[in-house]
Amino acid sequence: MTFRKRRDGASPPYEDVAGNGLLNRRALLGRGIVLAGAASAGVGASLTGAAAEPLKNDQWSLEMGSVVPAYQVPSRFEKDVIRTRSNPNNEFRNSHARTPHHLLQGTVTPNGLFFSICHSGLPDIDPAQHKLVVHGLVKQPMVYTVESLERYPMVTRMHFVECAGNSAPMFSSAPLQVTAQALHGLASNAEWTGVLLSTLLDEVGIDPKAKWILAEGADSLGLSRSVPIKMALDDVMVALYQNGERIQPGNGYPMRLLVPGCQGNMNVKYLRRLKLIDQPGMTFYEAKTYSQILPTGKSWLFHFTMEVKSFITHPSFGHSLKGPGHYEISGIAYSGNGRIAKVMVSADGGKSWAEAALQGPINPKAFTRFRMPWRWDGQPVVLQSRAWDEAGNVQPLRAEFVAARGQTEKPVTSPLAFPNQHYNSITSWGIDNAGSIKHVYA
Amino acid sequence: MTFRKRRDGASPPYEDVAGNGLLNRRALLGRGIVLAGAASAGVGASLTGAAAEPLKNDQWSLEMGSVVPAYQVPSRFEKDVIRTRSNPNNEFRNSHARTPHHLLQGTVTPNGLFFSICHSGLPDIDPAQHKLVVHGLVKQPMVYTVESLERYPMVTRMHFVECAGNSAPMFSSAPLQVTAQALHGLASNAEWTGVLLSTLLDEVGIDPKAKWILAEGADSLGLSRSVPIKMALDDVMVALYQNGERIQPGNGYPMRLLVPGCQGNMNVKYLRRLKLIDQPGMTFYEAKTYSQILPTGKSWLFHFTMEVKSFITHPSFGHSLKGPGHYEISGIAYSGNGRIAKVMVSADGGKSWAEAALQGPINPKAFTRFRMPWRWDGQPVVLQSRAWDEAGNVQPLRAEFVAARGQTEKPVTSPLAFPNQHYNSITSWGIDNAGSIKHVYA
Repeated sequence: MTFRKRRDGASPPYEDVAGNGLLNRRALLGRGIVLAGAASAGVGASLTGAAAEPLKNDQWSLEMGSVVPAYQVPSRFEKDVIRTRSNPNNEFRNSHARTPHHLLQGTVTPNGLFFSICHSGLPDIDPAQHKLVVHGLVKQPMVYTVESLERYPMVTRMHFVECAGNSAPMFSSAPLQVTAQALHGLASNAEWTGVLLSTLLDEVGIDPKAKWILAEGADSLGLSRSVPIKMALDDVMVALYQNGERIQPGNGYPMRLLVPGCQGNMNVKYLRRLKLIDQPGMTFYEAKTYSQILPTGKSWLFHFTMEVKSFITHPSFGHSLKGPGHYEISGIAYSGNGRIAKVMVSADGGKSWAEAALQGPINPKAFTRFRMPWRWDGQPVVLQSRAWDEAGNVQPLRAEFVAARGQTEKPVTSPLAFPNQHYNSITSWGIDNAGSIKHVYA
Repeated sequence: MTFRKRRDGASPPYEDVAGNGLLNRRALLGRGIVLAGAASAGVGASLTGAAAEPLKNDQWSLEMGSVVPAYQVPSRFEKDVIRTRSNPNNEFRNSHARTPHHLLQGTVTPNGLFFSICHSGLPDIDPAQHKLVVHGLVKQPMVYTVESLERYPMVTRMHFVECAGNSAPMFSSAPLQVTAQALHGLASNAEWTGVLLSTLLDEVGIDPKAKWILAEGADSLGLSRSVPIKMALDDVMVALYQNGERIQPGNGYPMRLLVPGCQGNMNVKYLRRLKLIDQPGMTFYEAKTYSQILPTGKSWLFHFTMEVKSFITHPSFGHSLKGPGHYEISGIAYSGNGRIAKVMVSADGGKSWAEAALQGPINPKAFTRFRMPWRWDGQPVVLQSRAWDEAGNVQPLRAEFVAARGQTEKPVTSPLAFPNQHYNSITSWGIDNAGSIKHVYA
């Protein structure tokens, strides 16, 4: 880690803490030291000298506005802040809809933009007809409706959900020139409310022979995955609410299994059945799709947990810098193993690193926003982030990751349909002296 | 506080902690003691004996579903989970849109259902044209755009916003038979991201003569309110994002002042101007509307902070109980003075109380969900909640509150247009032996 003095020799309101203008994160924490230099850097614009331009009201300041709707939607000026879709014509295959991380801030993914993968379209489930059956190796099989689950003790928790195939374009041997949405948009974060699965398992009574639970969805795919009983008795819930309102149709309405920190596919949507069994179901999605074959020829079977990861969302591909001066670097970090412990940021492609500020409260298995003050001097830079979790895991460097997990032989041009999963290495954004941003490997 | 033994004399999986079936909140915290009795109480339904009914697939399990949208919206079966509006035809007056608390869970209010009050409709503001001017008693007046604010250090924080007139129907001398939405729907809670006002004030430089800041909106109302400089330098922000995406049009798009814990009206939407001044502006909304006249004849001028409050959302008016057995009582608590410290719940109209479980993380000046396990014996009960905040404030009993603040001489039948503000006393739900729920004063 390098520290250098400000060139002007003044007592530092901004202390450089790593190469290419990364500033001490203390600059974010209080007033008095943050933006004194921003005016001269052209972040805001001085009013002095602009007084010759007559003030006028904009049209919206002069007329009655439009009707207030019963259910709010974003401004028409935000029409491009949407999920990108892999199957907009609803052909007879799966549909990905990716979260636009580069256009969002904070940690909550709003429900309209929460990612979804549907394998047979959006089912139109009537919650008054939908039932959840819990059976198999239990003392008393039970059937639950939305209405009956409402009477049970609930929990409310912030958790991310991430597809195991998220970030798969990063396996390409050359970096794809696409946004953080295209690279990492199959992960989102929400406040979920529901009934702990342990509560329902207590009610049905677990037969000691039961070691796994087969969870099955009610859409026409009938997707099913096996969850170890031990995991099911921890923080797994049957979720009914997403950010306060009922779960979205693309996210499992009227109920889904939430298996915090684990492959998205295990968080079975449209949950209709939980069967307690003595061995895993070896279903299609666990025996084939998510049994990742490693370069060694071995495969990962029941490799559930999504590893610690981070990526910078601001600035990133799709943005451009408007000249030298102060910027905030920020991004998202998360880990299926618990809380984020630390995020380091580099502006010189990994030669020097500085610790970012983490936005609290830091929830386990949830998005954490990291922030780093930065003064860009107009020269080319490479921005990177690297996260650590409370379990001691660290996001691997790209060279380490590729050595262990491989990459494609030839560069790939489409962000879709990569055969590989569980990418959790570093994302690098290269910025040239014109302020344009490229995806690079560094 | 009364404790009574279970009638069956068994060792208590549920320990009664107050009258009419309130159970120890430890029942919420772990497995093993929670719902063992629920099956017999008919919460879920046993499958035994129901095997004679042939299993069949629902229609949505048999066919390809519909197209995945670019921006998700709730299921059509949730069409009644909407904001109730006071001005659905957009007549030339203000418009209230209330949050349906009795239909939501958790703590986040989803953006579609966040309350709004617009005095001249929804302005259609182009964020590329919108400017925020900071001027008056400053060393360097500045103008900010959405784009320039994006470069400043940001913070992300969970905070409620509440209209000072929220809960005003509770001033009626007889209880209105309406939902928690109609009574308390002018308060909502979101994750806000923006630039601390202190950051911008550092940049413009505060003239020592400046004591107040006049904040003005860009809609045609041109609403303005005065904020003390000292408060502005604390946790006030210029918010750009609401639950991760840009602020909703009804909530101030593209930027609003967020003054955590203070009257909603001070959180000036469509923020276009901050003028530093040496005395308060004495604007319409502070000199008249929100200068509450007290029974003593004195008035509250610049009475900003929204007091500690709680109300039960589940069960509440609009719901009904389906027979005796286990239920969860839950609701929302919040205070403009900081974190919620404690919520007590009563099922016997205040004769006995028990402490509810609080859902963490408990954020300052934000909704906190409280939960209480409850076994209803089918007899009439009155449910109440009462909250304490970390500053030591307690929600007043209704008799105390009415003695200090008064109530209407005659019962009022409409929940709209009450002249009174800052109601923070207790809400009571009376449940009869048929399980129907009324709003009562107790």
